[in-house]
Amino acid sequence: MRPFIFVNLAMSADGKISTVQRRQVKISGKKDFERVDIIKADSDAIIVGIGTVLADNPSLTVKSSELKSKRIKNGKEENPIRVVIDSKARTPADSDILHKGDGQRIIAVSKKAEQEKIELLNEYADIVVTGEDKVDLSALMEALYEYGVRKIMVEGGGSLIESLFKENLVDEIYTCVGNVIIGGKNAPTPADGEGFLKEEDFPNLKLLDIEKIDEGILIRWKVVRD
Amino acid sequence: MRPFIFVNLAMSADGKISTVQRRQVKISGKKDFERVDIIKADSDAIIVGIGTVLADNPSLTVKSSELKSKRIKNGKEENPIRVVIDSKARTPADSDILHKGDGQRIIAVSKKAEQEKIELLNEYADIVVTGEDKVDLSALMEALYEYGVRKIMVEGGGSLIESLFKENLVDEIYTCVGNVIIGGKNAPTPADGEGFLKEEDFPNLKLLDIEKIDEGILIRWKVVRD
Repeated sequence: MRPFIFVNLAMSADGKISTVQRRQVKISGKKDFERVDIIKADSDAIIVGIGTVLADNPSLTVKSSELKSKRIKNGKEENPIRVVIDSKARTPADSDILHKGDGQRIIAVSKKAEQEKIELLNEYADIVVTGEDKVDLSALMEALYEYGVRKIMVEGGGSLIESLFKENLVDEIYTCVGNVIIGGKNAPTPADGEGFLKEEDFPNLKLLDIEKIDEGILIRWKVVRD
Repeated sequence: MRPFIFVNLAMSADGKISTVQRRQVKISGKKDFERVDIIKADSDAIIVGIGTVLADNPSLTVKSSELKSKRIKNGKEENPIRVVIDSKARTPADSDILHKGDGQRIIAVSKKAEQEKIELLNEYADIVVTGEDKVDLSALMEALYEYGVRKIMVEGGGSLIESLFKENLVDEIYTCVGNVIIGGKNAPTPADGEGFLKEEDFPNLKLLDIEKIDEGILIRWKVVRD
C-alpha cells in the first residue's frame, strides 16, 4: 500500500526546468501558479530532492491564504507534510523548508546519514530512515502511507523524478510547457539521472488531457502499468 | 534576405530526443511520421548538424513515392536540398545523406576545413564556405537564399538548433511530444550547447496551435521578434 503519487513540473518548450547554472527562472505564468497552489493544497505531502533544496531553498508552502484556511477548516495543517529525500542528511538546518510556514516536515535519510546531522535535523523534522546508501523510495512511500498520506505531489528535481520512474512510483505527471527556449546540454531537465537506455524500458504514458494555460500548455499524462 | 526557417522535432514527455547513448528510438507514431514527410516534401532544403550525421547516418529523403512524384511534377528534384552544417568537413564520404535518393547536397564548412576533405566531399555535394572556425549560419542562410531556397526545415540535432536560436534564425518550431519518459542527465535534448543563461535572453514563443497526434501531442510555436 502506497499513496497516489503525481509529478508536477514546468519546463521550457525545449524541455528544461532551469538554466545551465540552475538559475530559477519564470517558465509558466500566473494561472499555472494558481493551479499549482491548488493541487499542492489538495495534497497530503509534497516531496522534493535534496538537490533542489540546496539549489533553490524552496519553502514549498501553500501560498493562497484562502487555501490555507480551507485546509485548517478541514482539520489539516496549513501546509502538506513537506518531505525531503536526503540520503546523507545534507539539508541545511536553516533552510526555508524547515522554518517557513506551519506543518510537519520529514527528512527521509538512508542508513549512511551521520547520526549528528540526523539529531540536528530532528529538532525541526521527523526523520525516516530507509535504505543502506540511498533512500529506499518504495519503503519510504509505505512509511508515508502509515503516516496517513494518501496523495503526494512531487516537486522535483530531475534526479528524484527519474528515480521515482525507475522505481515505478509515479502515477501521473502534469507538465506545463512554457513559451520559452532555455537550451543547454547541461541544463536540468524533468528526468535526469542515468535515464532509460532501452525503448522497452521507457515508462509509457497515456494522454489524459491538454489545455492552453497562460502563454503555454498544460499536459496531463497517466503512467501506464503493464 | 534569408529563407523561412522552421525546426521540427520529436521529444519525449521529459524533453529528450534520444537516449544517453544517442540510440535512435521511437518517440512519435505513424501519423507524425506522415506529417513530417509532408512538411519535408514541402521544403526547399533540409538542414542537419554533423553530430546527427555521425550518430544516426540519416538519409533525409522524402519517404512517400506520391510526395516525390508531386515534387517532380512541380519541376523540383525528388528531395529537398540536403544541407549538412559541418564546420570541419567531417561528413563521411560514404554517408547515406550523400548517396541515398536523388537531389542536390550542400556541405556547409568553415575556413578551418581541410582542403583535402573538401575536395573529396565535393564529388558528391556542393561546398559552401562561411565563417572562420565555425560555419557562419547567417551567411549560410543568405547563400541558400541565393540558391533559390525559400523554406528550410531543420532536422536537428540539439547543438545546431541551439546555435540557430542564438543567431535568431528560427521562425517556427514544431514539437511532437511523445508518450514516453526517456530520462538521463546527458541525453540529447531539443536545444543543447551552452544554452541561454539569463531570462531576458530566452527566445520567446507564441503558441500557434496544439493537437493530439498518435499517442502524443503536436505543439506549433512561432518565435516572437522584439
